Amino acid sequence: MKIDGVAYRSVWLNPDDGWSVHIIDQTKLPWSLQVLRMTTRDEAAYAIKAMQARGAPLIGAVAAYGLCLALRADVSTEAMERDVALLNATRPTAVNLKWALDRMLTRLRNTPKPERVAVAYTEAMLIAEEDVKQNEAIGRHGLPLIEAFAKPGRTVNVLTHCNAGWLATVDWGTALAPIYTAYNAGIDLHVWVDETRPRNQGAALTAWELGKHGVPHTVVVDNAGGHLMQHGRVDLAIVGADRVTRSGDAANKIGTYLKALAAQDNNVPFWIAAPSSTIDWNVADGVAEIPIEERSETEVTEMTGRLADGSIATMRIAAEGSAAANPAFDVTPARLLTGLITERGRCPATETGLLKLFPERE
Amino acid sequence: MKIDGVAYRSVWLNPDDGWSVHIIDQTKLPWSLQVLRMTTRDEAAYAIKAMQARGAPLIGAVAAYGLCLALRADVSTEAMERDVALLNATRPTAVNLKWALDRMLTRLRNTPKPERVAVAYTEAMLIAEEDVKQNEAIGRHGLPLIEAFAKPGRTVNVLTHCNAGWLATVDWGTALAPIYTAYNAGIDLHVWVDETRPRNQGAALTAWELGKHGVPHTVVVDNAGGHLMQHGRVDLAIVGADRVTRSGDAANKIGTYLKALAAQDNNVPFWIAAPSSTIDWNVADGVAEIPIEERSETEVTEMTGRLADGSIATMRIAAEGSAAANPAFDVTPARLLTGLITERGRCPATETGLLKLFPERE
Repeated sequence: MKIDGVAYRSVWLNPDDGWSVHIIDQTKLPWSLQVLRMTTRDEAAYAIKAMQARGAPLIGAVAAYGLCLALRADVSTEAMERDVALLNATRPTAVNLKWALDRMLTRLRNTPKPERVAVAYTEAMLIAEEDVKQNEAIGRHGLPLIEAFAKPGRTVNVLTHCNAGWLATVDWGTALAPIYTAYNAGIDLHVWVDETRPRNQGAALTAWELGKHGVPHTVVVDNAGGHLMQHGRVDLAIVGADRVTRSGDAANKIGTYLKALAAQDNNVPFWIAAPSSTIDWNVADGVAEIPIEERSETEVTEMTGRLADGSIATMRIAAEGSAAANPAFDVTPARLLTGLITERGRCPATETGLLKLFPERE
Repeated sequence: MKIDGVAYRSVWLNPDDGWSVHIIDQTKLPWSLQVLRMTTRDEAAYAIKAMQARGAPLIGAVAAYGLCLALRADVSTEAMERDVALLNATRPTAVNLKWALDRMLTRLRNTPKPERVAVAYTEAMLIAEEDVKQNEAIGRHGLPLIEAFAKPGRTVNVLTHCNAGWLATVDWGTALAPIYTAYNAGIDLHVWVDETRPRNQGAALTAWELGKHGVPHTVVVDNAGGHLMQHGRVDLAIVGADRVTRSGDAANKIGTYLKALAAQDNNVPFWIAAPSSTIDWNVADGVAEIPIEERSETEVTEMTGRLADGSIATMRIAAEGSAAANPAFDVTPARLLTGLITERGRCPATETGLLKLFPERE
């Protein structure tokens, strides 16, 4: 997608050296657009852990490139297995990370050592390119859901939570792909952007990327979605996912479950947009089985923003001495979901629905 | 309740002059304890509007004292009616405001002008004292709900939203009254404090007053409650209300509805604690009939906190150029509530339940 008219992706190879890896430092958004150049495995692992690169599909691609950087330093099988384990441990909830690294490992184990670096770069590039194509397809399959509410003189209101836009993927986004597709097709739409505490990825990233692309939107606090739905101000909700179980449960940014409950209570369609790499076919019961990352309490008790003089600062926002807890994700049971939008099409959030789209998983 | 061992109320008369009114400036908490002295109607109106004094029961008491200050300037019936209208217009959602001013007006209309100031002060004092007694009773009636989960070696986990503590009332609080009562009775309890965006009354006020009283608590973002309930980490939820309809619907701080949905989905009891002055007997359908205050978008796009150097600052936290919407309350339908805790006892959130406690309203 574009930033002020210039096409960007969220991860790309340095065009001069052909091997170092660029990402946009998302911890610096929306205040400044800073591009990082990564040259080592540890820089890639840090980027994922510190959420300079975040979003389930993107961290899969960044981890794959991180393994390329690792192989440049040590091409041995022993090192490769260790580096995969290290990259895998950076974030626990998203399954794309494991999916991308497993795919790299499968490809590389049977590759002679001298060819490993070149093969790794090719595979990482394929993962990135496939992500872009998959998200474009998600946009296509999601478009009719938005079109269904479009009438002359009527604005379609879509609610989204967190950032599942192009910044969370290599391009297009997952939840935002149908929104960009509909907007580009000239549909009159407006997006309710959940602020998404504690890291504010909605107010900071989704609002930023929608604004840069020209999509009308309004930021609301995470508390507001139920009220908006009660009063008919949301036509449908589309969010991303960090892991979808074979039965259709979806782990996504903390608070998604609350919005899905409100959607059900108000007959608002609630869709998960996610590529197939997000589906964990080994897990059925999401609430019981998906590990939920507990992040630092300072993400809750402190906040970063821009002061009146333009400088970026971090401040304490909770009472001194009060502790905080910070579960980063929650699981929305499949029963609350209208369905899933994948690169192969839409399906009900059930094992039967998923297997119809992915019969090879039977 | 106490602050560092010293007993405080949230509104009181100046003991030296006997007529000017003190409040704690709640916009300065939790960073500093600043006591304001109000001498005019306009200062009282501003205090309510700017939320220096907030919380449905407290703004009723402050408005009553505000009318006392107004009468000191002009004791005529014409001025009194105008001043009541002006004070009434400061906040639209809480019914206690109207209740307190109606009560003052009823008392004062039949009072000869020369006696009005003295009668007004007496009536305002009665409103404040009754609030304290009512909240103490709410604490007593709510205590068994917490006690029911208390077992040796087991901590009772209570979730609350926004601030319905002593700061929101004259003393004790509504939702926090059962918590203080249980804590004082030696029950092992822990409070999950919802941050409560956009004004952070949970992280700033509830955490502060619980901490000052010594009650164990943990701050969580508003998104987290559903996840905590899914995993059995919340025994019951108790929140306050700004208006309760005769059918038991409850308007409270935005986001309450989402938590009530999660409580229902996980069989967690969800109670509203509110004095009878919060009940609007003229309204039945809360979602359709209760006006919801829309507050400034800067409450969403900016945040105030304490910088590392100790200074208090306000910063932008949303992407530049993005608009925000800020509905301040939502309505939780009675069907989601386990019941109401009032000064007369507990009842189901139904018209029948309420009328059983308040038969004079038949």
